[in-house]
Amino acid sequence: MAAGEGDPQSRVRRVALALEYDGTGYSGSQYQENAPSIQGALEAAINNLTGERTRVAFAGRTDAGVHALCQVAAFDTRASLEIGAFVSGLNHFLPDDIAVKRALDVDPAFDPRRHATNRVYAYRIDNRRVRSPLMRNRVWHVERPLDVAAMARAARSLEGTHDFAAFAGPYDGSTVRTLRCCQVLGDCGQVTLRFEAQSFLPHQVRRTVGPLVEVGLGRLDVERIARLLDEAIPSSAGPAAPACGLYLAHIEYDGLDFGPEQ
Amino acid sequence: MAAGEGDPQSRVRRVALALEYDGTGYSGSQYQENAPSIQGALEAAINNLTGERTRVAFAGRTDAGVHALCQVAAFDTRASLEIGAFVSGLNHFLPDDIAVKRALDVDPAFDPRRHATNRVYAYRIDNRRVRSPLMRNRVWHVERPLDVAAMARAARSLEGTHDFAAFAGPYDGSTVRTLRCCQVLGDCGQVTLRFEAQSFLPHQVRRTVGPLVEVGLGRLDVERIARLLDEAIPSSAGPAAPACGLYLAHIEYDGLDFGPEQ
Repeated sequence: MAAGEGDPQSRVRRVALALEYDGTGYSGSQYQENAPSIQGALEAAINNLTGERTRVAFAGRTDAGVHALCQVAAFDTRASLEIGAFVSGLNHFLPDDIAVKRALDVDPAFDPRRHATNRVYAYRIDNRRVRSPLMRNRVWHVERPLDVAAMARAARSLEGTHDFAAFAGPYDGSTVRTLRCCQVLGDCGQVTLRFEAQSFLPHQVRRTVGPLVEVGLGRLDVERIARLLDEAIPSSAGPAAPACGLYLAHIEYDGLDFGPEQ
Repeated sequence: MAAGEGDPQSRVRRVALALEYDGTGYSGSQYQENAPSIQGALEAAINNLTGERTRVAFAGRTDAGVHALCQVAAFDTRASLEIGAFVSGLNHFLPDDIAVKRALDVDPAFDPRRHATNRVYAYRIDNRRVRSPLMRNRVWHVERPLDVAAMARAARSLEGTHDFAAFAGPYDGSTVRTLRCCQVLGDCGQVTLRFEAQSFLPHQVRRTVGPLVEVGLGRLDVERIARLLDEAIPSSAGPAAPACGLYLAHIEYDGLDFGPEQ
């Protein structure tokens, strides 16, 4: 019998987890039959800890190779473990490229995807001439110097409520979203882009970074970015930036704090 | 015939390289018959680029799992390539955990080990409660909170010219060295130690970090560090810190600049 095995008599509780992971070795966050996934690894660890088979729900999908500094997951359990024991217990069973940073008891109706009020993504570019072995799989290496000021101007024109069809993969619903923040910061050959919205379209961040880098390389005018937005032709802004530079950085909820650990 | 193959008629030149590498997958810098080494990978890349079989000399040995932000290597070649082509050409053939950041033509008598005037090592500790998947193999994860101020006081007592026998592995020569800098900096759960000297004893950095962390955990008095130094009993300061947190950060030479790339 597993250490915290669920007692059929005890009440079901919903537990939320803040996860950090290196997405390099995974086909993405969502379960897949024949490929390693964050969901598969986490459900296996929960099974090892509690003896229960359970389904985990995530705040946001991440693609193959995309990282998370703070992904939020929730699951139901009958395990009567003290909440802190979910952190140490799951980390004992998880592989070393996934960790639970924090666990919270939440309302049984808590839905990590639908209840998120703000999502923050970061995208990291190494803009030095030579690739960095110590940063491989953590950044997009762009060899030619980027005009960070031009990228920042183009990024600012994307902020606000717009139809982002041009900057997303194929999507069947409304492509109108509100981008609260689209910032570009550059320092010592490192360029970091920061995106904030309540919700994003599929591949929206990577399909925004791609054309912003084209602006930075002088291949696309700053004004062209605004026109792509206006024309709203699906996926017309060009190819997505590679997955390895993308980080799901933070997810906010009303009344629930997964903020930085002490 | 390889692209830059050495012409037997052309003059021998000595080329120095600044290397960055992730040491995780290697048995260390020095060539080993049956294990992957930085030297083996670099000599293979030189052979692929120039068609020559050559021996590479390093500024400093790094152990299995130890990283380099700037290791210096030198070798002789008859290849008449423009010096910049050694950077792009070798990076083409090197695996993605090793890169040449810079190449310089140097005096045929240049010896990267003997001519170094200053060596800088950095040691990185992640001092947050939960291990970080994105920093694995890049830091030593120390879970319990460290007293950084106490570590910094103990570190300062090691600066200067002393017999460092207690803080080194077995060594047959004089164990007197001059430690120009031994600093401890802490911020947001990240602790970085910085060491500078013209030369170090075998394992001196890791065998200094180990006891300094013991001081930070309150298991060793600051004053005990100074006594260990005075007693100078070989290897008495206790176990070495793990390899994964150690970085060969910078090596200085008179009249030769491998400084930060543009």
